[in-house]
Amino acid sequence: MRMPDIDAFVNEEAQRLISELEGWCAIPSISGDPDYATALADSARYAVGLMRAAGLEAEVLHGEGSDPAAFGTWSGAGPGAPTVTIYGHHDVQPPGPLSAWTTPPFEPSVRDGYLYARGVADDKGLVHQQLAAVRHLLSAEGRLPVNVRFLVEGEEELLSPHLEPLLAEHAERLACDLVLVADTGMLAADVPTITTSVRGSLAVAIELRSAAGDLHAGAYGGTVPNAGRALAEMIGRLYDRDGTVAIDGFYDEVREPSAEERRLIAELPFQEAEFSRAIGVRALPGERGYSPLERVGLRPACEVNAIHAGYDGPGMSASIPSTARATISLKLVPDQDPDRVYDQLQGWLQDNVPEGCSVMMRTLTRAWPFQTPVKHPGNVALSRAIERVWGRAPLYVFEGAAGPQHSLSRVLGADCVHFGTCLPDDNYHAPDERLLLANYFRGVRAAAHFLGELGEMPRDALGSARA
Amino acid sequence: MRMPDIDAFVNEEAQRLISELEGWCAIPSISGDPDYATALADSARYAVGLMRAAGLEAEVLHGEGSDPAAFGTWSGAGPGAPTVTIYGHHDVQPPGPLSAWTTPPFEPSVRDGYLYARGVADDKGLVHQQLAAVRHLLSAEGRLPVNVRFLVEGEEELLSPHLEPLLAEHAERLACDLVLVADTGMLAADVPTITTSVRGSLAVAIELRSAAGDLHAGAYGGTVPNAGRALAEMIGRLYDRDGTVAIDGFYDEVREPSAEERRLIAELPFQEAEFSRAIGVRALPGERGYSPLERVGLRPACEVNAIHAGYDGPGMSASIPSTARATISLKLVPDQDPDRVYDQLQGWLQDNVPEGCSVMMRTLTRAWPFQTPVKHPGNVALSRAIERVWGRAPLYVFEGAAGPQHSLSRVLGADCVHFGTCLPDDNYHAPDERLLLANYFRGVRAAAHFLGELGEMPRDALGSARA
Repeated sequence: MRMPDIDAFVNEEAQRLISELEGWCAIPSISGDPDYATALADSARYAVGLMRAAGLEAEVLHGEGSDPAAFGTWSGAGPGAPTVTIYGHHDVQPPGPLSAWTTPPFEPSVRDGYLYARGVADDKGLVHQQLAAVRHLLSAEGRLPVNVRFLVEGEEELLSPHLEPLLAEHAERLACDLVLVADTGMLAADVPTITTSVRGSLAVAIELRSAAGDLHAGAYGGTVPNAGRALAEMIGRLYDRDGTVAIDGFYDEVREPSAEERRLIAELPFQEAEFSRAIGVRALPGERGYSPLERVGLRPACEVNAIHAGYDGPGMSASIPSTARATISLKLVPDQDPDRVYDQLQGWLQDNVPEGCSVMMRTLTRAWPFQTPVKHPGNVALSRAIERVWGRAPLYVFEGAAGPQHSLSRVLGADCVHFGTCLPDDNYHAPDERLLLANYFRGVRAAAHFLGELGEMPRDALGSARA
Repeated sequence: MRMPDIDAFVNEEAQRLISELEGWCAIPSISGDPDYATALADSARYAVGLMRAAGLEAEVLHGEGSDPAAFGTWSGAGPGAPTVTIYGHHDVQPPGPLSAWTTPPFEPSVRDGYLYARGVADDKGLVHQQLAAVRHLLSAEGRLPVNVRFLVEGEEELLSPHLEPLLAEHAERLACDLVLVADTGMLAADVPTITTSVRGSLAVAIELRSAAGDLHAGAYGGTVPNAGRALAEMIGRLYDRDGTVAIDGFYDEVREPSAEERRLIAELPFQEAEFSRAIGVRALPGERGYSPLERVGLRPACEVNAIHAGYDGPGMSASIPSTARATISLKLVPDQDPDRVYDQLQGWLQDNVPEGCSVMMRTLTRAWPFQTPVKHPGNVALSRAIERVWGRAPLYVFEGAAGPQHSLSRVLGADCVHFGTCLPDDNYHAPDERLLLANYFRGVRAAAHFLGELGEMPRDALGSARA
């Protein structure tokens, strides 16, 4: 189909798009907090309203036990055309201390070319970007180059605990040839990037117990087990002398980075000194033989998120702690499987229980690693769309943290690609979250071109299970 | 001098002694809390009243910055007779949650032969025991076998932060041939014991910093320093493979237990299984080649009191902690010196700073180890007094935790011996603190006999710096 003038649309409609996005961001759709259940429902209805305004059939979906999602569909391109499911979320992180915000988190405010609001970058702005593109194409041409579904869930910030059953329940309506995850960013406003790989994760809580209660360190020191010491020693043994993870079999399924992947990473603008200064670290320790970006994107890791034992307050308590707790997260790369890694860790713990202690472990979160080949037709379409708007080809990014890509791909039987115009300094999950409007508008244009590029492709080129 | 009938006195005066002690225990003399400053002053005055009632000259001492102490003196035995300074304290631990107490902590109550109240065992009852003995001797005979000073301080539960200057300021009035620390217990009501050794301690706070702020574990995992992991690994390295302390030079000054000391410890009734069951531990790990009681009494140790890094609340935060804190206490035996051990630990930390981290350390508490030879004339006198009352010779105990013995001995230039009738199940520092009255009365009798035994000794037999 002929592509209408998306640039003109964006220029003409800019203020209306901003107002619409502000209206959505004013709704405090914090997931996981019963106090905000009404706001979350309002936000889902708002999304349905945006979808209908864009010309989609839309409704709120209530999955079993899940917060409400917004679902929209347009099938006018016919069964021969590709179908793309655009995934995003309308729930937001809690705002944290209000005093840290320049303007209130749920009173959207434009300053210096940015729209400030909780959720504007993660992820309402990026979903709205896609809806704006669809609306323009439908209003200008009466049709889209491809069939489109939108799924905007309400529990992403909780790591999508009910997404899989929701997908399964509506699998027929969501069936597609490609999933677009509209929840990522780019390296800089003038350095467009495509996320093509995300690491998975297994986070576990470990609890160690050494005695019926805390014991006086003077009276018992040197003769009883100490849960705090034991947990520290156990964590120490989790790593080999070279800093790699000491769990048996942990690296067995790790796919070695290809020469192509390493070349793509080497192309990214990255200054070790500047990177270190920005986060205030003195060194970048890690697995030998890999650059910092290779380690973050393509190598597994084991991080201690928390460790707690004993008294925590003013002064001290001269006690031997009888319990100790740690949260550990293992970052996983293809072809590691969080369930298999859980078994490996469980086995390691059993072999390493400190003398006199008992150990309990439970899963906190699981996410599968996910990769899309750089040359995947979906990435090719995205790359062309980005080049049209930014005037330069995108670079490819291997990111450290996964969302629900694995679930989406597995249940819907399609590959995932990623697009979004969030920037590294957009403060997502932090106070003063914001979205650079100029980049948002570029994103609207790129989103339209992406659908156009997809429309040029035969369905079977996308290689989905449906094809 | 002739010893009056202390048994008859105790029988006749029992109810009055209990009422007096109840009156003292009703005063909530919690040290270190400004809300209880008035109570602490009332308690010091109450102690002065008890001293005067016993026939001593007495006054409240206000040291520089310190909570009030009670001081009493009786010098009628003349300059040729030995002088003993009896040390104790009138401050008490905070009671903790009131709901855990059967009767309110500051409403003393007699049940089943016990007097229940905060501070009754630690340490008002044991000081009162000594005062009761003195009162009876003075009222019955008009004189004591030796010169006596009482120093009842108000900051022992804070680890006596101002005791040394107070002692120095009043050194002339407190000068003595022997110090009796009236703040210890015995193994059981029918197993009288004398504490003859206490371990010292160096407690430090260690803080580790790895980045300007916490970092997202997905985005940075595997490529930045992690303060929680680094601190755990560092604590792991504090110990050698056999569990001993890995700090260079730590054992250099440790005096090897003598055959006599090991024999005395072996004489103590100790059942490993029963001991373990009582505190709910599955094993008694520790330094090889030493029994559990040898380890607690005569071997140094390194205990982790607390370790804290990262989020601590419901759910989890997938962050890499940028700071981590630990409290470590090193238990010390003769001839270890906490100041020298501090330097050793500081040196070890400098040699073991994890890559990319900075480490800070500060002292929380210091206590010197202290030992009195078992055959010291003061212990001989105590032993005879105990045998008269209990009908059996006391055993000797090597305890895990010191009070101010080192300061008392050093500033007053005299050795310390220990006596008190607190029992292991008297719940000191816990709810329902109590004192077995039958044992308290035995203690009053033994305290009188102890002064009698001392009176039989020539001053120079006590071997003090004054002699």
